[in-house]
Amino acid sequence: MYAFSSLSKNNLHGEFIAATENEIQEAIEKATAAFEIYRQTSFVERAEFLEAIADEIMQLGDALIERTHLETGLPEARITGERGRTVGQLKLFASLLREGSFVEAIIDTALPDRKPLPRSDLRRMMHPIGPVAVFAASNFPLAFSTAGGDTASALAAGCPVVVKAHSSHLGTNELIATAIINAAQKCDMPDGVFSSLIGEGALLGQQLVKHRQIKAVGFTGSFRAGMALLKAAVNEREEPIPVYAEMSSINPVLILPDKIAEDVDAVTSQLSASITLGVGQFCTNPGLLFVLKDEKTGAFIEKLAQALQQVLPATMLNQTICAAYYKERQQLLSTQGVDAVWVGNDGSGEYKGSPSLARTTAKNFRENSLLQNEVFGPSSLAVICEDENDLRSALRSLHGQLTATVIGSPNDLKRFQSCVDLLIAKVGRMIYNGVPTGVEVSHSMMHGGPFPATSFAHFTSVGSEAIKRFLRPVCYQDCPQEFLPLALKSENPLHIMRKLNGVYTRDEVQQLEAVPQ
Amino acid sequence: MYAFSSLSKNNLHGEFIAATENEIQEAIEKATAAFEIYRQTSFVERAEFLEAIADEIMQLGDALIERTHLETGLPEARITGERGRTVGQLKLFASLLREGSFVEAIIDTALPDRKPLPRSDLRRMMHPIGPVAVFAASNFPLAFSTAGGDTASALAAGCPVVVKAHSSHLGTNELIATAIINAAQKCDMPDGVFSSLIGEGALLGQQLVKHRQIKAVGFTGSFRAGMALLKAAVNEREEPIPVYAEMSSINPVLILPDKIAEDVDAVTSQLSASITLGVGQFCTNPGLLFVLKDEKTGAFIEKLAQALQQVLPATMLNQTICAAYYKERQQLLSTQGVDAVWVGNDGSGEYKGSPSLARTTAKNFRENSLLQNEVFGPSSLAVICEDENDLRSALRSLHGQLTATVIGSPNDLKRFQSCVDLLIAKVGRMIYNGVPTGVEVSHSMMHGGPFPATSFAHFTSVGSEAIKRFLRPVCYQDCPQEFLPLALKSENPLHIMRKLNGVYTRDEVQQLEAVPQ
Repeated sequence: MYAFSSLSKNNLHGEFIAATENEIQEAIEKATAAFEIYRQTSFVERAEFLEAIADEIMQLGDALIERTHLETGLPEARITGERGRTVGQLKLFASLLREGSFVEAIIDTALPDRKPLPRSDLRRMMHPIGPVAVFAASNFPLAFSTAGGDTASALAAGCPVVVKAHSSHLGTNELIATAIINAAQKCDMPDGVFSSLIGEGALLGQQLVKHRQIKAVGFTGSFRAGMALLKAAVNEREEPIPVYAEMSSINPVLILPDKIAEDVDAVTSQLSASITLGVGQFCTNPGLLFVLKDEKTGAFIEKLAQALQQVLPATMLNQTICAAYYKERQQLLSTQGVDAVWVGNDGSGEYKGSPSLARTTAKNFRENSLLQNEVFGPSSLAVICEDENDLRSALRSLHGQLTATVIGSPNDLKRFQSCVDLLIAKVGRMIYNGVPTGVEVSHSMMHGGPFPATSFAHFTSVGSEAIKRFLRPVCYQDCPQEFLPLALKSENPLHIMRKLNGVYTRDEVQQLEAVPQ
Repeated sequence: MYAFSSLSKNNLHGEFIAATENEIQEAIEKATAAFEIYRQTSFVERAEFLEAIADEIMQLGDALIERTHLETGLPEARITGERGRTVGQLKLFASLLREGSFVEAIIDTALPDRKPLPRSDLRRMMHPIGPVAVFAASNFPLAFSTAGGDTASALAAGCPVVVKAHSSHLGTNELIATAIINAAQKCDMPDGVFSSLIGEGALLGQQLVKHRQIKAVGFTGSFRAGMALLKAAVNEREEPIPVYAEMSSINPVLILPDKIAEDVDAVTSQLSASITLGVGQFCTNPGLLFVLKDEKTGAFIEKLAQALQQVLPATMLNQTICAAYYKERQQLLSTQGVDAVWVGNDGSGEYKGSPSLARTTAKNFRENSLLQNEVFGPSSLAVICEDENDLRSALRSLHGQLTATVIGSPNDLKRFQSCVDLLIAKVGRMIYNGVPTGVEVSHSMMHGGPFPATSFAHFTSVGSEAIKRFLRPVCYQDCPQEFLPLALKSENPLHIMRKLNGVYTRDEVQQLEAVPQ
């Protein structure tokens, strides 16, 4: 296999060999053996490992930036930013490990004299679940790929990782995988704690998800591929496992009338920038705009179309994605009741994506759920609503989303509060007077949401809370102090936040509390 | 339909009518409409509702105890204890709501001057997921049924509940359901916030799990039924939903040699009591005993058999469970390599379960996974291991479990630490020198575990953490203070524990932090 460049339109140097079935088996067996050791490593050891990965990635220097640029067509400045984000994620998880409270320690001390029955000493904390398969994403060659958020959070949790490399950035994968393996060796981590496999996408994916020693899957990609993994995880294994799939979101934006009247230029330029950012190849791309019909609506749509016209077509990630974009866009535009407002030329010969804006009515939107299919690229659909009731009905028919955005004046936000509430019920993140593109890596980020945005709305794939996907609680009942994990010992040697008899504290457990009179 | 008493062996008074398809549809539609209102109720309002349910249940008085006793054959003292547990659970969730920190508020304040990009104000908290279907369990007519832990935790989360009543305690269900509906009316909760449906088990179960407006399922029951729900939730719905199924566990006990030598009488009487408690009808019943072969082993097994012989056969929950017990026990006893140690008479004519003890070798255990099938009743299988290596191999072949127990002297625990580690990797709760029966309702309880014990090892169905099954995170980006939920407002009006810029605190957010210079 070769990596193909949509910039230079040829194969890049370096041949990549698909993993054989034996090699896949070996990688997973090594990960399973590594788990026995890796799960026992201290939080600080794991933090040092993540920090070492970050260092090794930085040491790849310009070679990484150049290769990723060639493989993805993404500008070097973007790749450099994404590298910063990737390294930042690794360091965020390292800091989470050093702080230690992520294990959610909960302690209820013994009540030996309680009637009718005494209470045992009960102490609970999170443990890693086992080897995790991570599927690299096409659109974030660094931050959602080989050393991306899924890998960082699984390694932080104490789970070995087997990555399925994305076929459109194989050279990038090889550089990053080598960096991780170097870091593992320098930090004395067990052989097999990380590996990366190359292969025909659907086939390798199925092999990984069906393997009995894989205990969870992290995936970012298409709806179809995500659902195939989810179904295989339940139907084609003896033991069902969780598949955390981020799949499909069209990220509705509700643009309210006062704001349009006040500030149409600012709103349209902000929206146009978000729709076309990264040639629209973001999972948070705003593909749907709800607008109320009034005398300003026509002018607003017109201005937005003008702003989009100013954006030049740009190279997309690969040929398949570019071809799919024009196909999906054409399907949308040819749907009954959908009118083109402005549609850029088909640039698929050049692998370039041009912006597009279409419009329809709320009634059409409600009645045809195909209008909610994601068009992955710089395309958006404006839904014109007759009045507030019409808007509300349209919002009720909306599928689950990663994000929703409301753009409104203070007066708008008051008047349309119930509409915003309807949006909140459908999404993982609600943005006020901003744009959905740009996902902060922080403790409070929720990058997830109700189906079909993800397969499981309880979890985020970005930010420190992403670690929870790979942890499960274990309760120790009447365990002698010497055998308790550090996080649960009475003296609280890690000085972590714990819930002690219902109270949050970093205090140690008093003997008095442990054995009341 | 009538409730049949395995005590009096006849139908009890009162006819129950299975819900029609229209009635099922109506209950779920009402729950969906109720969700719009119920999700907006304050934590205190929900706490008052749960407390009112507890009051209404207590006000049912002896009528409840008597009816449940007749329907289940469980002794009145046990029912009275279980009522206390049920009411205690409701109050635990009420206290969790009054405290408020369960929403896991996380706030990262804006950094407008950060380079290269500013950071938005990001605030995240848990929201309810929507209407939940709860499946009542046969073996806990109160604590895991109509107003049991699943219902209490879902209502606490802000989710309306539709219960599938268990056919073996329909009168109990009716009494409790009326108590809940009375409480809902007294507390001004929306119509449809709770309903209970009766029907042919598998049919009604499938109707509930497939309904598009049901957003999660809480289930305690058989492996087969749990798996059928799990598969339907992924294969027969457009939107897959989580099924939290607690299914099958044989709760291994590792009994170590020093302890046997020191204290054989205490160990055998404790084990025999746990094996036969509630006629073995607990999901934490110890069905598997690992023992090392030495000169004391034979005497230990003999003593345990003697202790079990002292326990009289007792009435099981219903005819089906009793018949299944003798069938499963017979399958176990007729498996090649399994020897009966002591087997009580078949009491199925009387619906009574008699204890049974069998033995096999670690080699047989490893090679025949059928020996890990749950025998629901007072039966246990001793696995005799040649040495520590043989034990370790047997433990490695063990399926996931709710619990494991180790019974050992301090010296034993040191010597066999690696074996206990193997157990911990397979279970939700690890008990030291106790018995697995008896599940404390507390903050630290983990009643769950790796498959097939449950469908999802991340969650507990007992204790305050059970609420997490019905909550999902929502992040508010740059939301004006006046539109933020109370839990996220800067002044922290609920005075809850929050993670603020990475630090746990109940402090308010300073304006300085919100808008740094």
